[in-house]
Amino acid sequence: MTTRLEHDLLGDLAIPADAWYGIQTQRAVNNFAITGVPISHFPQLVKALALVKQAAAQANRDLGILAPGKAEAIIAACEDVADGALHDQFVVDLIQGGAGTSTNMNANEVIANLALEKLGRNKGEYQHLHPNDDVNCSQSTNDAYPTAACLAIQFAAEPLVESIRSLVNALYKKGSEFSDVVKMGRTQLQDAVPMTLGQEFDAFAVNLSEDIDRLHEACLLLCEVNLGGTAIGTGINTHADYSALAIRHLAELSGKPMVPAANLIEATSDMGAFVLFSGVLRRFAIKLGKMSNDLRLLSSGPRTGFGEIKLPPMQPGSSIMPGKVNPVIPEAVNQTAYQVMANDLAVTLAAEAGQLQLNAMEPLIIYNLLNSMRMLGEACHMLEQRCIVGIEANRERCAELVDISIGSITALVPHIGYANASRIAKQALHSGGTVRELILAEGLLSETELEQLLSPQSMLGHHSA
Amino acid sequence: MTTRLEHDLLGDLAIPADAWYGIQTQRAVNNFAITGVPISHFPQLVKALALVKQAAAQANRDLGILAPGKAEAIIAACEDVADGALHDQFVVDLIQGGAGTSTNMNANEVIANLALEKLGRNKGEYQHLHPNDDVNCSQSTNDAYPTAACLAIQFAAEPLVESIRSLVNALYKKGSEFSDVVKMGRTQLQDAVPMTLGQEFDAFAVNLSEDIDRLHEACLLLCEVNLGGTAIGTGINTHADYSALAIRHLAELSGKPMVPAANLIEATSDMGAFVLFSGVLRRFAIKLGKMSNDLRLLSSGPRTGFGEIKLPPMQPGSSIMPGKVNPVIPEAVNQTAYQVMANDLAVTLAAEAGQLQLNAMEPLIIYNLLNSMRMLGEACHMLEQRCIVGIEANRERCAELVDISIGSITALVPHIGYANASRIAKQALHSGGTVRELILAEGLLSETELEQLLSPQSMLGHHSA
Amino acid sequence: MTTRLEHDLLGDLAIPADAWYGIQTQRAVNNFAITGVPISHFPQLVKALALVKQAAAQANRDLGILAPGKAEAIIAACEDVADGALHDQFVVDLIQGGAGTSTNMNANEVIANLALEKLGRNKGEYQHLHPNDDVNCSQSTNDAYPTAACLAIQFAAEPLVESIRSLVNALYKKGSEFSDVVKMGRTQLQDAVPMTLGQEFDAFAVNLSEDIDRLHEACLLLCEVNLGGTAIGTGINTHADYSALAIRHLAELSGKPMVPAANLIEATSDMGAFVLFSGVLRRFAIKLGKMSNDLRLLSSGPRTGFGEIKLPPMQPGSSIMPGKVNPVIPEAVNQTAYQVMANDLAVTLAAEAGQLQLNAMEPLIIYNLLNSMRMLGEACHMLEQRCIVGIEANRERCAELVDISIGSITALVPHIGYANASRIAKQALHSGGTVRELILAEGLLSETELEQLLSPQSMLGHHSA
Amino acid sequence: MTTRLEHDLLGDLAIPADAWYGIQTQRAVNNFAITGVPISHFPQLVKALALVKQAAAQANRDLGILAPGKAEAIIAACEDVADGALHDQFVVDLIQGGAGTSTNMNANEVIANLALEKLGRNKGEYQHLHPNDDVNCSQSTNDAYPTAACLAIQFAAEPLVESIRSLVNALYKKGSEFSDVVKMGRTQLQDAVPMTLGQEFDAFAVNLSEDIDRLHEACLLLCEVNLGGTAIGTGINTHADYSALAIRHLAELSGKPMVPAANLIEATSDMGAFVLFSGVLRRFAIKLGKMSNDLRLLSSGPRTGFGEIKLPPMQPGSSIMPGKVNPVIPEAVNQTAYQVMANDLAVTLAAEAGQLQLNAMEPLIIYNLLNSMRMLGEACHMLEQRCIVGIEANRERCAELVDISIGSITALVPHIGYANASRIAKQALHSGGTVRELILAEGLLSETELEQLLSPQSMLGHHSA
Repeated sequence: MTTRLEHDLLGDLAIPADAWYGIQTQRAVNNFAITGVPISHFPQLVKALALVKQAAAQANRDLGILAPGKAEAIIAACEDVADGALHDQFVVDLIQGGAGTSTNMNANEVIANLALEKLGRNKGEYQHLHPNDDVNCSQSTNDAYPTAACLAIQFAAEPLVESIRSLVNALYKKGSEFSDVVKMGRTQLQDAVPMTLGQEFDAFAVNLSEDIDRLHEACLLLCEVNLGGTAIGTGINTHADYSALAIRHLAELSGKPMVPAANLIEATSDMGAFVLFSGVLRRFAIKLGKMSNDLRLLSSGPRTGFGEIKLPPMQPGSSIMPGKVNPVIPEAVNQTAYQVMANDLAVTLAAEAGQLQLNAMEPLIIYNLLNSMRMLGEACHMLEQRCIVGIEANRERCAELVDISIGSITALVPHIGYANASRIAKQALHSGGTVRELILAEGLLSETELEQLLSPQSMLGHHSA
Repeated sequence: MTTRLEHDLLGDLAIPADAWYGIQTQRAVNNFAITGVPISHFPQLVKALALVKQAAAQANRDLGILAPGKAEAIIAACEDVADGALHDQFVVDLIQGGAGTSTNMNANEVIANLALEKLGRNKGEYQHLHPNDDVNCSQSTNDAYPTAACLAIQFAAEPLVESIRSLVNALYKKGSEFSDVVKMGRTQLQDAVPMTLGQEFDAFAVNLSEDIDRLHEACLLLCEVNLGGTAIGTGINTHADYSALAIRHLAELSGKPMVPAANLIEATSDMGAFVLFSGVLRRFAIKLGKMSNDLRLLSSGPRTGFGEIKLPPMQPGSSIMPGKVNPVIPEAVNQTAYQVMANDLAVTLAAEAGQLQLNAMEPLIIYNLLNSMRMLGEACHMLEQRCIVGIEANRERCAELVDISIGSITALVPHIGYANASRIAKQALHSGGTVRELILAEGLLSETELEQLLSPQSMLGHHSA
Repeated sequence: MTTRLEHDLLGDLAIPADAWYGIQTQRAVNNFAITGVPISHFPQLVKALALVKQAAAQANRDLGILAPGKAEAIIAACEDVADGALHDQFVVDLIQGGAGTSTNMNANEVIANLALEKLGRNKGEYQHLHPNDDVNCSQSTNDAYPTAACLAIQFAAEPLVESIRSLVNALYKKGSEFSDVVKMGRTQLQDAVPMTLGQEFDAFAVNLSEDIDRLHEACLLLCEVNLGGTAIGTGINTHADYSALAIRHLAELSGKPMVPAANLIEATSDMGAFVLFSGVLRRFAIKLGKMSNDLRLLSSGPRTGFGEIKLPPMQPGSSIMPGKVNPVIPEAVNQTAYQVMANDLAVTLAAEAGQLQLNAMEPLIIYNLLNSMRMLGEACHMLEQRCIVGIEANRERCAELVDISIGSITALVPHIGYANASRIAKQALHSGGTVRELILAEGLLSETELEQLLSPQSMLGHHSA
Repeated sequence: MTTRLEHDLLGDLAIPADAWYGIQTQRAVNNFAITGVPISHFPQLVKALALVKQAAAQANRDLGILAPGKAEAIIAACEDVADGALHDQFVVDLIQGGAGTSTNMNANEVIANLALEKLGRNKGEYQHLHPNDDVNCSQSTNDAYPTAACLAIQFAAEPLVESIRSLVNALYKKGSEFSDVVKMGRTQLQDAVPMTLGQEFDAFAVNLSEDIDRLHEACLLLCEVNLGGTAIGTGINTHADYSALAIRHLAELSGKPMVPAANLIEATSDMGAFVLFSGVLRRFAIKLGKMSNDLRLLSSGPRTGFGEIKLPPMQPGSSIMPGKVNPVIPEAVNQTAYQVMANDLAVTLAAEAGQLQLNAMEPLIIYNLLNSMRMLGEACHMLEQRCIVGIEANRERCAELVDISIGSITALVPHIGYANASRIAKQALHSGGTVRELILAEGLLSETELEQLLSPQSMLGHHSA
């Protein structure tokens, strides 16, 4: 392997001659190998880094801090990277010390070398355009990195929202399809009162759809960034107009309503927006998990369980039990949900560990948020395509269970009183008789009254439409 | 003890003759003794239950479902309880099975007996006014209880917000007091660049104050309730106009903008608003914890630590080391924060455990939210009164550390370049010399330039005001 | 209120004249009000503190460090406290700063004043016998407090183990009672192969019983203590023979095999044994939770669920649905389990927060361990008495489900092959026919062969005894 | 791509012609893409699967259940896979539904095709040797998979233990190197009493080394396996002698003391041993985290922090602050520790979700345990090689801090009393004077006495050797 020699504070180091990254990236690669997952695993982060660097370069150019030639070369390089070039050069492991310095320097170095090429120079000729002095000009890791993270998370939220929306639509579609399937509702796993299977699927849809709004709200908090705060938020080494200008450029480049945080010192160590965002992901994971639990309950059987719905079979269920088909898709969703809930704890732990003017554990936070979003997106897609769309109702079973249950007695309470109804219910359970028979036998209501009170319209309530 | 006999589905049970609660409360007391903490520990929950019962009674009266006499007696009883009467009669343990049925019945029974007294009847004469048929009329635990919980949490958020606001003000006051104390900022526990101690306290203030907004936003989600959904959200056994009417009454009685949830079936099993609220409490706990960590770091010493501030001594610090004073107040805050973060996990676990049309683990969620708020309020108050207000700056120490640090070299980077500056910094560290001396020795900058660049105005940046 | 004046490093403070505690306890009471739960809530902790103080006094007496008169007074006072005297004087809140100093001083002061009385002196006459110089002689909070905690946890484990053992026995009894009830086993909520209900309950019993061993093992790690290490484990201010001697006394007094830790400096900041203990409590909570989930599943119904068992009704289940009985006891156990799992997180968070020579968050760890054990003990007792002992099998239902299931086909795989069996199973599910019919129709096995292969003895396997 | 057609319960599916896996693996690959991490990421799991299949084949051969020719072909195939062949054919994603069925079938299919080749047959000619009937003979996923997992974890523990041991040795070496560096001990970040830097590093070493024992103990619990229990632990479709025989073979093949669990039904759904193992990993993570926190505190500075040690610089610390070097290695360790603590929560969540005769979430448990071990091993290695071995003591700084602290007064308490000492300490802090001067001025002790009492030997205590 041919190499070139680069130099930094710690001395010289050989790096691959054709590497677009430089010495600081190489040191980080040598230092960190915890997860094996490189930055490039999350293209949204690479793109966000490029946009931040571009916005900074544009502001530096506008303010006369960077010479136009250098600035234009950097801007062009950033555009290339944002468009997908050289993503494979973002090689540092996502669990890294240094509060993101290695990620920031990886970006600085790749962009510097790409800009050098545009200037007709060779890689590593930093005397002509320097990763720190020029690409990182007016920036510190401590503002550029979290700003990029705020953007990356918003980028990653877009496909997640699309996956959720698509899943929600599939659920609503099933809600319509099953709108005439009357079934027993259950509370605490005990027979309650009737509802329709359509209502059940509509409720799933409504439940998940609300988190699209929550994600959007959480994204808004990520629009307040500390770019321009540099090292600790005081803005040392920046022009007085730089912060506002750079963020304005960033808003334009990204299409996101980025604004300066009210207090850049506070914003530099604050992880609050990430914690809240993680809380929303957790909430969505909890909902996905609850729905998966329900799908597994409702499809339990085929002969000895609830058996109200049938999930599409996706693979043979057992290496020993022939014909067994398991709810493998919801099970995988449940596990994804657990992992996301666990990742949320990693975010919590890292967020609490901030000290003084910075949180050195930020890389772990970013990693877990991006990872959780990726997994949730996959899970939604899988759940929709490989489960929801193929679900069938077991209409006979649903009807039969409504028939044999005694939950219908609830509809009579306003007419015969709670105490009477309790007595009749108890009797029915013991004797095996039906509510209708016992009511008639006692003459508590006439047949006509019963007919009307126990009709689906009556029992399904007002809020069932 | 004299007793009276009451009857329910399971048979007869003797309860204390002077108890305002009834048989179902008594059964629950016999069943549950896990925490030893009764409902009355959280007066906001009792008040909220009373308001829900009152709103329901008013709606039932308006719609002609409850006879005016009964309705007025119930309403009067609810007003008494909301005003503080009979709170000691809310005796059921907060960890309870039954998805809150015991809490709901405790309210129904206390209110029924109080209403009976207003009608000139004796306790237990439910033939005249019944806990289920009348007090619980048009309701189920499954709508009345979560609606009350949503209200109770909002009530409990008010004193918490006041405690936060007061703490924030104390921090801002310290920010002003310390606005002229220049000190070294630190990132990753390593010397960074200068800032003021005032900025540090202002950042604490800003950081915490943001969570007042977050709490308000989270409260708004708790205004969407499922009252009128009864057993599973279909609204069985209610008048078509009841839900909207009851919630309108509840909004008036509580002063909170309560509205019906969009889908009552979904709302009946959804714990999402609680999970999000818990996430905000966790976020605030993380912030309190981080600030407490910082206070302990900054006051470390008195002789061998950072020693930049002095916390007011609250108690002797050691049973063996004389003169030792420890940061006991921040330490207690840290522990409170950990407990709140742990309680948040309990909420997560309980929320995920919902099944089908209800979440039977709701009582644990309510318990932990109310408990965490109570502890956080106490912690804020303690931190403000017993720590923040008495903090003193060690001005000499702060100045001395700025003098000996080499972090000031950052301010020279735009003028001598990152590489040069790195070399000089390394040299200074090894030789023990100062940055100023080495720069002058190399002739990189003139004395006048140095003077200007290393002035506080220059080093403190634009965003320090 | 009459008061007496005491004095410490911070000055004078009035305390109630009849208080057995002193000034440092009073300061702590004034400082901390987070939980409202005082030390006395956990009598095992008070007893353990008394035994540690007694062991120290005995060692100090033996080594001639404490005068015999003083030593005997202290020892007598410790005995009284260990026997239950003055527990109400242990008043400090369990969440406290100071790494347990307030708890240690609460013990030192109560014991000092009780010893003073034994010497014929008045409360507060510390010139005759001093809480620090005499009761705390050769000790620091940093060794006395964790040593007491290690002991308190072991004491608290005893009743917990008894509760578990009793619950396990009740489960085994049900195992015997149900040993002839053949039912379908289920994996992934799908029909699997037959087993007996007795096996199911035996498995619960075995599962929980294993944690008795785990608790004992975890207790052994708590026998290694740092008493004699004083402030940071170096043993400053102790006689060279003190540590071993004091711990030998402690072992005798407590009946526990207490030994000195191998490295007292390490032991002084190490929370490892607490973390492991918490992990065992969590494990037990997970098991209790899983079993409760199963009980709720198996008893789901009564008409539209699994319905294989019937839990004893403990209270009416619904304020609106007459006759509904819910699995309230398992539900309360589930919630307890979640709280314990959450408390375990508090332990984790606190354990990670240790710094340098001590962990200041130790009080939170102790609090959560003792609290979790108390709640688990209550939960086991409740579950046994109010649920397990009254469970009935629904024998008809179990038999019927075995009959209609197709899981029995698994027993034929060794004879007709996995592929054939899969095909038949699929056919049976679609046609609604039985496995037996289809096998015979295809002539895959003879009627005699089928009879033998599908007999309970064959299907229940070798490991069913 | 050329393909071959295979068939299962759900119909036909084309798979790559050269794939060693078969149709069920292919279905799983199509179904699951959550993590992107395939089984082959953990070679210990592949090896363990091969050994389980081999042990089963040997037992089946011994009992005459598998024909010798088939058995030998399977055994030979298993040996190849255990030795490293075809690992890249283990392609299923680690988060998968089906309780491990896909992993088990991936193993069954690869081994079947490899055995077919050894028999001179083509891939997919399962009529000659079948993945289910032959390779999976006498097994179910529900016993083969958890048995393999128990083994895989033990295999993965070996390199982890080696990494820990090596790190511990490096710490002890530093302990020796620094044994003469007297420094201030600190409790609660406040100056306490003197110790040596060597003691501090020895304590780290002791602390971590204890977890080697804990890992071994936790591994022992993983030796009790349910192989032979098949579908639900009843041993359906096995010979009465199979379980014991297969496990005996497995013990021989693996070199681990594998034994049958006492109750195979219990063992089939029990996740207790995994939970406990995870608790040990968490404990170790907490310890690594605490030590990393300490290293960062002790090396804080270089000029405005504690500055007692110097970590080897591994990379430039800042993109803006020249000369800054950050504790990047401990920071990466901290983050790893947080991730492990989070993964432990995933294990908890999954373990609690077991239902009835199986825990369908087992794959998530296995994934997190293996992943955490892998990350911890990397972290230990990184910490040792890139941090510990290069740590230098700042001897002057340590000595200077001891000199100026007032913690030495603790050594005088036995001679002048706690109250006197407290007074003097307070005076010293206010006046800035030294303890020695004030004691002499008051005539509390003579110069000779002071000399002796404040000597290092006296202050370092008995337990400092």
